Amino acid sequence: MDIATVRRAAERLDGVVRRTPLLSSPFLDEIAGRRVHVKAECLQHTGSFKFRGAWSALTALDEETRARGILAYSSGNHAQGVAEAARRLGVPSVIVMPTDAPALKIANTRALGAEVVLYDRTSEDREAIGARLAAERGLALVKPYDDPQVIAGQASCGLEIADQTAALGIAEADVLVCCGGGGLSAGIALALEADAPGLRLRTVEPEGFDDVARSLASGTRERNAKTTGSLCDAILTPSPGELTFPILSRLAGPGLVVSDEDALRAVALAWQRLKIVAEPGGAVALAAALFHGDRIEGDDVIVTVSGGNIDQAVFARALATL
Amino acid sequence: MDIATVRRAAERLDGVVRRTPLLSSPFLDEIAGRRVHVKAECLQHTGSFKFRGAWSALTALDEETRARGILAYSSGNHAQGVAEAARRLGVPSVIVMPTDAPALKIANTRALGAEVVLYDRTSEDREAIGARLAAERGLALVKPYDDPQVIAGQASCGLEIADQTAALGIAEADVLVCCGGGGLSAGIALALEADAPGLRLRTVEPEGFDDVARSLASGTRERNAKTTGSLCDAILTPSPGELTFPILSRLAGPGLVVSDEDALRAVALAWQRLKIVAEPGGAVALAAALFHGDRIEGDDVIVTVSGGNIDQAVFARALATL
Repeated sequence: MDIATVRRAAERLDGVVRRTPLLSSPFLDEIAGRRVHVKAECLQHTGSFKFRGAWSALTALDEETRARGILAYSSGNHAQGVAEAARRLGVPSVIVMPTDAPALKIANTRALGAEVVLYDRTSEDREAIGARLAAERGLALVKPYDDPQVIAGQASCGLEIADQTAALGIAEADVLVCCGGGGLSAGIALALEADAPGLRLRTVEPEGFDDVARSLASGTRERNAKTTGSLCDAILTPSPGELTFPILSRLAGPGLVVSDEDALRAVALAWQRLKIVAEPGGAVALAAALFHGDRIEGDDVIVTVSGGNIDQAVFARALATL
Repeated sequence: MDIATVRRAAERLDGVVRRTPLLSSPFLDEIAGRRVHVKAECLQHTGSFKFRGAWSALTALDEETRARGILAYSSGNHAQGVAEAARRLGVPSVIVMPTDAPALKIANTRALGAEVVLYDRTSEDREAIGARLAAERGLALVKPYDDPQVIAGQASCGLEIADQTAALGIAEADVLVCCGGGGLSAGIALALEADAPGLRLRTVEPEGFDDVARSLASGTRERNAKTTGSLCDAILTPSPGELTFPILSRLAGPGLVVSDEDALRAVALAWQRLKIVAEPGGAVALAAALFHGDRIEGDDVIVTVSGGNIDQAVFARALATL
């Protein structure tokens, strides 16, 4: 992974992905005790940053391979990103999704034209199912984060952050990123290293799923004891990626951790103050900025809201925290 | 009102107002039967387009006048726009608001530093209250729509629409705008006339408050029979403005009208498909595109979502329509 791969991906993404806005509110600044700048990736196509990596990966394949079809496994946001990229490129996609993924994410993935194969997250191995389907049908697997072209695609979000903060005159700040397997975090870290070296990446995870924070502290890839049991479905991964962890280990500051309750409160404040829809897993970085400011440095903080694909019942729980 | 005034206002707004994104979703395109492009002005500072006109008007005043303080009357969005512009410029503001304005709008206006004076919409005259306060305290009145500098500020939204549609290769389309007194509609119409003459402005209003549609049909300024009784509080005005109506009469196509129920369904779909928060009065244009497509022409339609300042109870009613 080098910055040249990132810049080539950015060229393929240009004019296709949305340049999402950097939002703010004096009300959030007051809660956080510093200026909070929110990169609203929930406004990306399919409602999360995942379309960036999917488009990068699919357009990096040779045409013949791509035409045979794409395979992905995902709890929902990567699923929709891959399904939409495949739809726009006119190629078939098969997505392996857990039965407990949010209903909206499963329905959307199907509606975008993908064939959805459901599996039981507690008793079946999605990678084994994926490998079998790929072999049987000649499909090209696009992994959710441990793929250089996926990381390079997510990095485009970091290039935009570098541009947008420079326009605001921000030279030094922490950049808080919602972190599952680390594709978005690693991509943004590479982009910042090249274009905004005064900005430091910080990962944010839900309590009980802080594998990246523990791995950054210990220097080796730690695993989570469980893979279910948080509202933050989008970022529940067993351990940091093989490709993403060395990047994070080199470039990221100490990892941050927030509770599901913090995430719900951040979802509600994003609704009230920024007029955007965040899902819990997409709101953990905002939660860290708002409610754990003592663990951040500087007058400004940048946070990603990485996705907004939330079911109605969970959204109602979030608004009830106001 | 000429385009030179619009361009001078755009220069004053540059780097201060947000260039809001033009969003879309294949799910909304399918409902509408054509491509729907949503200008998300709910993402503007203070959650509505009104900050544009407020900033334009306040920065057009001479410094001495501005320093004595600003007066505005508003049901809530103009209030917040003026309060925030005054806060940023470091001058006092007094806002006259109806007692039945949404609680969030009143609270926000106060929190942004304005002095709020409440009045009873059914028995008191806000213009008389405003005139008295302005005389007593030497305040400069910034009207919500019948002010050339306010119209010129709102027009900056139209200049952005012209740019953004050109980038998408759209040369002909209807541009649907949520319409109260007509400040945003007239401003956008002037901008399109200059920069995107193939785009045609169409006003959208709630049932029972269709003074602009009836005025466009009759050629004279018609009045509404009532001033309360719709969820679309942001756009309940008695009649088209003196300055805005001649512009609309010259440039706008036939006016469109939607029900409160249509507006609520559009609020819910904006949440689900675009990940943005719309208020009912800010969602009438989207409602017209989605549910009254037979009254629109072309393969593309542009709609404004003009504001997102909605109380929780109304938002819950909207989501219940899904």
